[in-house]
Amino acid sequence: MSLASSVLEGKRLALARLLSQIENNHPDGQAALGDLFPHTGRAQLIGVTGAPGTGKSSLVNRLAFYYRNPPEGEPQRKVAIIAVDPSSPFTGGAILGDRVRMRDLSGDPGIFIRSMAARGSLGGLAPTTASMVQVFDAAGFDIIMIETVGAGQAEVDIARLAHTTLVVEAPGMGDDIQAIKAGILEIADILVVNKADHPGVENTERALRSMLELAHPAPRIFKHHGHFERVESPQANPDRDEAWLPPIVRTIAIKGDGVPELVSAINDHQHHLVESGERENRDRARLQAELDILIQDNLVYRWRKSVSDAQYREILESLIARKISPHQAARDLMNGGHGT
Amino acid sequence: MSLASSVLEGKRLALARLLSQIENNHPDGQAALGDLFPHTGRAQLIGVTGAPGTGKSSLVNRLAFYYRNPPEGEPQRKVAIIAVDPSSPFTGGAILGDRVRMRDLSGDPGIFIRSMAARGSLGGLAPTTASMVQVFDAAGFDIIMIETVGAGQAEVDIARLAHTTLVVEAPGMGDDIQAIKAGILEIADILVVNKADHPGVENTERALRSMLELAHPAPRIFKHHGHFERVESPQANPDRDEAWLPPIVRTIAIKGDGVPELVSAINDHQHHLVESGERENRDRARLQAELDILIQDNLVYRWRKSVSDAQYREILESLIARKISPHQAARDLMNGGHGT
Repeated sequence: MSLASSVLEGKRLALARLLSQIENNHPDGQAALGDLFPHTGRAQLIGVTGAPGTGKSSLVNRLAFYYRNPPEGEPQRKVAIIAVDPSSPFTGGAILGDRVRMRDLSGDPGIFIRSMAARGSLGGLAPTTASMVQVFDAAGFDIIMIETVGAGQAEVDIARLAHTTLVVEAPGMGDDIQAIKAGILEIADILVVNKADHPGVENTERALRSMLELAHPAPRIFKHHGHFERVESPQANPDRDEAWLPPIVRTIAIKGDGVPELVSAINDHQHHLVESGERENRDRARLQAELDILIQDNLVYRWRKSVSDAQYREILESLIARKISPHQAARDLMNGGHGT
Repeated sequence: MSLASSVLEGKRLALARLLSQIENNHPDGQAALGDLFPHTGRAQLIGVTGAPGTGKSSLVNRLAFYYRNPPEGEPQRKVAIIAVDPSSPFTGGAILGDRVRMRDLSGDPGIFIRSMAARGSLGGLAPTTASMVQVFDAAGFDIIMIETVGAGQAEVDIARLAHTTLVVEAPGMGDDIQAIKAGILEIADILVVNKADHPGVENTERALRSMLELAHPAPRIFKHHGHFERVESPQANPDRDEAWLPPIVRTIAIKGDGVPELVSAINDHQHHLVESGERENRDRARLQAELDILIQDNLVYRWRKSVSDAQYREILESLIARKISPHQAARDLMNGGHGT
């Protein structure tokens, strides 16, 4: 039986093996993903990001626990968690509190947790995460949470994979940190003030609220790669983002306080996405961005095979000796290394 | 007379016009840059980065003033400042305190200041900045300071253009902000604690020192673009980064305190770069990274012209309908849109 069929049947070992193949950029992993792809598109993708120390991991833990043990009348969901840490090894954040999570959730076959460190992924963090999301989606996980640390471009790219992005804050962070995180706020669908029993919670909430008011809801556009033109969906509604003002939800993750309210806000946002047609827009944009990156990588790979190391080195040396400019060097190499 | 010759002769108007052409990706700008390129490679490039509120701009201002008005026995230098703000418009940082600078430095023909906002640059912020640096270099500026705000990937890419990178901190920032900035610390050649008369300066310096000790000096490698292989210079010394421990310098930029000590640290670092061969390594790596990005952009541009909008759209729709996977779609489009 193929790896893809085993994953579709819910075999955890097969799932784990496929995720490793994808993380290592193994060709078998890509082949299996091709078979699984028609089974994707059903899962609800939730991004969770925020600075270290905000209690993000505990919150993700609690959300997973809620979805696994819902109140009467709500359906139980299968939950996957992808914890991505793009920061450098020396911040020591790569473990991402897996042990904390495990205490409540281990042994539950309806949950699967996968950690990924920056250095462990070949071919880029965001493309690898996108592939992993597709595997979990095909394997029948209803909720896929993507957890990232920090505020860099890598986190933003990854958060954009999600349908609903939670940005987690905590009291006691100054004005400077808020300014740095302005870029992160732009991608927030829901703002969470965790550790809401800590002093300063009113200040944090007030600061967030004033930043939200400052932020004209910017159109949610994927980073433009190279010279690709954006193909707009005919259903695209240019006012779509004006219709959703990110709510601020207070939580105390270690006690579970505020988690039902947060789930309710997530459901509201999902409902908004479907009603406004924005869910389809985001799915389209996500797939197109993935396609564009794959084409770019393949073009470079194909071209690199057409130029010998000696040719590349010779032109690079002319550039470094300042005999030719970077644009001239690029032109020469594009013409097979024989000059113009 | 050509624009390039006018720039070489030191005409400020020509310089300003060329910088605008480069910012707008105008072909004339690239042609002029080709003529100027053989005249580059002499300037000393200093990157200055740090969070908003650290007083970075005042510090850059003071450094420029020092280089323009050096103590007896030190040579006067021509100074260019490129102030780049990759943050989103709603943080309101795009002005970058030009007026503050102007009071001390305006009217001095030996100084040129250029601000650049993220939205004002076509074709990427780091490549545009690299071209501007080359223009100033050819035009005979001895010192080129590149100032960026924040801690994202864009700032890191820009900082890597420099020979010497200063990371500016200020007292009163908590542990959380330090953790976020871990990535920025990795690129620091010199750490500056500005506003050193503010309370908490010892704590900030202690926190930085312990982070420096944690940080195994990571090899300074350019971001790997696509599938390019790295051509190593035969002179490359794998231990080069172990030899420089970033010093911590206290300054009070608004009073000018600590600026002579900072210049001295910068000179020490430049000396280290030349002695260790690292200056040549960094120049090589910078030019190779620029070449690789140009080739990638050109490949995508050339390919995009070979595929019609209708072909691209048809395959994209098959992808979105989940009839084909992203990898299959990429393969189809690479083969001219006719399927495999």
